Amino acid sequence: MQIGFVGLGKMGGNMVKRLLTLGGHSVVVTDRSADAVNASVEAGATSASDLADLVAKLEAPRAVWVMVPSGAPTDIVIAELGKHLSKGDVVIDGGNSNFKESQARGKALAEKGILFVDSGTSGGIWGLQFGYCLMVGGEKAAIDHLTPVLDTLAPKDGWLHCGPVGAGHYVKMVHNGIEYAMMQAYAEGFELFEASGLGLDNAKIAKLWMQGSVVRSWLLELGAEALAKDPTIAGVAPFVTDSGEGRWTVIESIEKAVPTPTITAAVQYRFRSRQENSYAARFLNVLRNQFGGHEIKK
Amino acid sequence: MQIGFVGLGKMGGNMVKRLLTLGGHSVVVTDRSADAVNASVEAGATSASDLADLVAKLEAPRAVWVMVPSGAPTDIVIAELGKHLSKGDVVIDGGNSNFKESQARGKALAEKGILFVDSGTSGGIWGLQFGYCLMVGGEKAAIDHLTPVLDTLAPKDGWLHCGPVGAGHYVKMVHNGIEYAMMQAYAEGFELFEASGLGLDNAKIAKLWMQGSVVRSWLLELGAEALAKDPTIAGVAPFVTDSGEGRWTVIESIEKAVPTPTITAAVQYRFRSRQENSYAARFLNVLRNQFGGHEIKK
Repeated sequence: MQIGFVGLGKMGGNMVKRLLTLGGHSVVVTDRSADAVNASVEAGATSASDLADLVAKLEAPRAVWVMVPSGAPTDIVIAELGKHLSKGDVVIDGGNSNFKESQARGKALAEKGILFVDSGTSGGIWGLQFGYCLMVGGEKAAIDHLTPVLDTLAPKDGWLHCGPVGAGHYVKMVHNGIEYAMMQAYAEGFELFEASGLGLDNAKIAKLWMQGSVVRSWLLELGAEALAKDPTIAGVAPFVTDSGEGRWTVIESIEKAVPTPTITAAVQYRFRSRQENSYAARFLNVLRNQFGGHEIKK
Repeated sequence: MQIGFVGLGKMGGNMVKRLLTLGGHSVVVTDRSADAVNASVEAGATSASDLADLVAKLEAPRAVWVMVPSGAPTDIVIAELGKHLSKGDVVIDGGNSNFKESQARGKALAEKGILFVDSGTSGGIWGLQFGYCLMVGGEKAAIDHLTPVLDTLAPKDGWLHCGPVGAGHYVKMVHNGIEYAMMQAYAEGFELFEASGLGLDNAKIAKLWMQGSVVRSWLLELGAEALAKDPTIAGVAPFVTDSGEGRWTVIESIEKAVPTPTITAAVQYRFRSRQENSYAARFLNVLRNQFGGHEIKK
């Protein structure tokens, strides 16, 4: 089928490549980076100079996949698309948007008769080869229209119509929250091995656990590969950033009063990892000194 | 090779079967249950009436694999074996013993020249088919002697000599701690889906995530299979027991001052799940009433 694609970064560029080479789809692309556009054109895409041009080059009912950073960039692109698209067209947000934003965007577009689909996309840089796991929310009519594209992007049985608009990004949000806690669990375990004094070899243990252990997973496989190349990871900074989905999962757990102790702890651990000079830690030292006369290190 | 096997429960019975059928080893078995012994004998094992008889039926240097519940049962069996075995013989504890107990048992046996090997064993009821992931601690001479048996029990590259006596059970302990936190992470996520109000289908999402998502794992695969059979899990009791390794991981993290927020939270969550009438929750209600006049439900 024919589809427009906005945003040709690490994820978007590879998805376009998969659509062209594996699915034989006709893809019209645009991106702020001329290099990214040229790479997609070389792979067989048609370029558009801007969003208006992209919409003009598509036949109705149009489908436009948006793959730009969440927040303001997604807002700007979808609002602009809303001006050019027509009733019956479909906009897909394949980024990591907050599900509440997706629900709001879906509502705004619905007023013009434009269908909105939110697709949580998992698979990272490996998706080009193995396919992307897609968690999709929206009206059935929109999903039916997109099925040829979803079939190409995902591996077999690798996409699911999860529910109404917002459901796709909701499921992806929680997916990432779980991912945070799983990564944290492995990190805690391997740090214990480092501290054990038993001369344990993390790279060998990670590789071992992939052979029939209960904790084998794709994340552990990635960890085993990384540790095989660099067992001490001494040159890696101990500051861990986050891209929002973990926070949103914790906020949602608070709004729904659902206990999420491990996901919450994993998110909070990342916050702490980014503090070089924690006010709270200094304050604890001050209090210990106040009541116990414990020495304060300067 | 020839090996003695003590304890023919769910794990031990299957391990003997694998040793006999896949490795063609000669296995002398004993167990308190005559039925369990008979099942192994039917599979090709030789039975022994008790530990003394088992030792008498083995040729030196003997190897005896102990697969009984951790704590007192393991203590009793290994102490008794220590009386009958001779210098150069090897005792393997394949159960979930605390690594400190294993270190103590290794030390006690070493005084008689008996070698001790601790083997953390992962794989559960699936190990018969796929092999057991074995985390092994002990002296090199003992491991070398056992290599034919380890090669049979484990899948390819599925056993590792982790370090000195205790290292095997240490690695298994942390493995189970990680397992607790991973299970908890999934559990939190799927509970959020139940609370989402979006009509999400946990069974379908679990199955979807096995297709290329970042959180795919063997535990999730088991979860997907369970949810496919029983999506609401309404008839399952919400009380979660534990078998000790998670607690030991948390204790070790305290002794080494290594932060383990997700593993700790997962263990604590299980404790809370077992309380039908929590004193702490009642106390919180009393305090809320004291300072805020909040109503106390009886």
